[in-house]
Amino acid sequence: MPVFLNTADAGFEAAFQTLLGQKREEAEDVDQAVAAIIADVRARGDQAVIELTQRFDRLALTSETLAFSPAEIDAEIAKVRPEDRDALELAAERIRAYHARQKPQDESWTDSAGAMLGWRWTPVSAAGLYVPGGLASYPSSVLMNAIPAKVAGVERLVIACPTPDGKVNPLVLLAARIAGVDTVYRIGGAQAIAALAYGTGTIAPVDKITGPGNAFVAAAKRRVFGRVGIDMIAGPSEILVIADADNDPDWIALDLLSQAEHDESAQSILVTDSAAFGEAVAKAVARRLEALERRAIAGASWATNGAVIVARDLSEAARLSNRVAPEHLELCVPDPEGLAREITHAGAIFLGQYTPEAIGDYVGGPNHVLPTARSARFSSGLSALDFLKRTTLAKMTPEALKAIGPAAERLATSESLQAHGLSVRARLDRLNG
Amino acid sequence: MPVFLNTADAGFEAAFQTLLGQKREEAEDVDQAVAAIIADVRARGDQAVIELTQRFDRLALTSETLAFSPAEIDAEIAKVRPEDRDALELAAERIRAYHARQKPQDESWTDSAGAMLGWRWTPVSAAGLYVPGGLASYPSSVLMNAIPAKVAGVERLVIACPTPDGKVNPLVLLAARIAGVDTVYRIGGAQAIAALAYGTGTIAPVDKITGPGNAFVAAAKRRVFGRVGIDMIAGPSEILVIADADNDPDWIALDLLSQAEHDESAQSILVTDSAAFGEAVAKAVARRLEALERRAIAGASWATNGAVIVARDLSEAARLSNRVAPEHLELCVPDPEGLAREITHAGAIFLGQYTPEAIGDYVGGPNHVLPTARSARFSSGLSALDFLKRTTLAKMTPEALKAIGPAAERLATSESLQAHGLSVRARLDRLNG
Repeated sequence: MPVFLNTADAGFEAAFQTLLGQKREEAEDVDQAVAAIIADVRARGDQAVIELTQRFDRLALTSETLAFSPAEIDAEIAKVRPEDRDALELAAERIRAYHARQKPQDESWTDSAGAMLGWRWTPVSAAGLYVPGGLASYPSSVLMNAIPAKVAGVERLVIACPTPDGKVNPLVLLAARIAGVDTVYRIGGAQAIAALAYGTGTIAPVDKITGPGNAFVAAAKRRVFGRVGIDMIAGPSEILVIADADNDPDWIALDLLSQAEHDESAQSILVTDSAAFGEAVAKAVARRLEALERRAIAGASWATNGAVIVARDLSEAARLSNRVAPEHLELCVPDPEGLAREITHAGAIFLGQYTPEAIGDYVGGPNHVLPTARSARFSSGLSALDFLKRTTLAKMTPEALKAIGPAAERLATSESLQAHGLSVRARLDRLNG
Repeated sequence: MPVFLNTADAGFEAAFQTLLGQKREEAEDVDQAVAAIIADVRARGDQAVIELTQRFDRLALTSETLAFSPAEIDAEIAKVRPEDRDALELAAERIRAYHARQKPQDESWTDSAGAMLGWRWTPVSAAGLYVPGGLASYPSSVLMNAIPAKVAGVERLVIACPTPDGKVNPLVLLAARIAGVDTVYRIGGAQAIAALAYGTGTIAPVDKITGPGNAFVAAAKRRVFGRVGIDMIAGPSEILVIADADNDPDWIALDLLSQAEHDESAQSILVTDSAAFGEAVAKAVARRLEALERRAIAGASWATNGAVIVARDLSEAARLSNRVAPEHLELCVPDPEGLAREITHAGAIFLGQYTPEAIGDYVGGPNHVLPTARSARFSSGLSALDFLKRTTLAKMTPEALKAIGPAAERLATSESLQAHGLSVRARLDRLNG
């Protein structure tokens, strides 16, 4: 059974702190193994990747077969049912439209000193997307990672997706094609991250790596960070639903189970101003669990990490939610826009009872790659901005340099950086003399 | 002597590759020591920080004296000369004005399916800035880190700055006050990063940590990444100057030396379309080095990492610069705006001969915390955006859910996520029934 808390109870604060501090994922200590794999790929390139793929994925590749050929992709895509293709295309279109609005503007202006200032945005040249194999090989994640990169203007976009025992998800390949991915490598794990970051004989290095993965992939991304850009280190998924009694308990139960079915480490929290409604949702969860295909996973997640919290009112619910900083937040209340203004930390907000979180996973438009494990306190979901970088611009006229140069010289001197000061002084002397 | 290359020479590409691949900084392997320090601070809080500060900084603190008191800050600030204060205030004002323009807009719209979509930006609640002690304790860096945080709306802003043997830079404290920093802790190293990330009895944890530091600080930031946000892992500074023959070789020499004097690992590269000008600049560097206070550092940097490259024309120079992706790029050419349009990767561009890079270090307005070590390929300088995060918004009407819900259900089914599909289906059934 999940934990039931009531903010009116004396022990609430301690119990809530425990919930907040709950470590839902034991970090496997794979760092040394990953360091060795990265060193091997740097030293031996293709050959290391091929041997590691044989060992971990039981798949014999050559430099020529590291990537799917266009014909192989065609053959896999042909297996996809038309209704699945249509759904993917609708999703892609909506994701593209949403992310296109994120493209920032270049700016430049002249300030009162006569200095021209501004900035320009340019895309990352090459990006690599990691797509897990097996159970978690989600075509929707391909769209969510690849489309922002294309919208940003990334020139070369590749995927690394392991195919253990040669098993491929045709929908992943279709999603890659719809999104405009150039190449799909059938490699995974730390060796794939190393190959993308450093390059091999066959695989050209990329500048940025995004996408979820297991503990090996996460440790490898952390290690190559700096050599390339990375997105975030993703943790287990989570949802917090704020719902009053004027909701169907069954709908809310299904929303909670949508997260719980991802992973035993996932977390689903209901915060409500009605104890009776909280009880009703818990009952509905138990009922729905009986028939759920993934009831073992979802049941374990709900029992271990689930919580029902009864708050005095919706504002208190919002304050609790801000302390959780949830990845997904549903506001199933009469005035969701109003309550949203009280939310300071959340990856994504779903407003009103007709917006189940699952809409956001697929077809809403916003990205489903969102900050987990309370990291919405300081980070954002994936966006076109993750594939762009900003170059600042400054141009001094002689007059601007005369106006502000002496202060720069003064500060350089105070920091004992003489050449800095002289580089300004030499110009000022010419201008003044 | 720095390396001289000419793109017309047969061996150019190999030599340029060597320059690009040159490892300028040996990463000290301090990771295990840092892991132990972080574990100690998590376990013992204040007491661990106090003992480590005694050991590394030879300074006896108590929980009460971890932070400077307002009176101590007043006393230190009183030592600052008025001209230094004026220069800092001018710099602060210009940095504030520039970063204020970076604040992004919230957006929301209704799309053709009737879905309301959008996003909102909110500030990080608490940020910690690391300021190195000793030689590299730069008041300008305090402004460059703290002002974007304040512009973003960060509520609580603290500094960790070690004071080895109790030595304090009054300008650092003045810069902190001008920028609106709330508290300055006199602690440093991995113990400071751990205290900021996890909190201690006295130090409340923050959500984001920025600022440069030594190998211990860098390793600690990498380790706490995920628990808190971090900026980048900064490497040694670098400049690339593209200059034609119509420049004063002495000015360009001083610009190159401005980077070289930071650190022996710093790198200064001149790319010019005139071999004679390249020679003239090299001579000017040698002449200026003779009288430079930091000639040992600057001379070693220039000899080891410096380069003069002669290109066929300015467009080729821009292409070479893009392969370097320099932190600082000066365009000392007749049409700097035109050439800037050919630049795809650079942290900051300084346009024209009256914009020495030192202006950008202090008073230009743009940030001087910029991507080093070729990371301008995928990252940007520090900005107000680093202290903001974006929450995506979505609201479906019944009509919107009817329009796009079935595709979400289809995709959920294809990914074997039954509860996801049911959460949509339950609502559609009600709406349709």
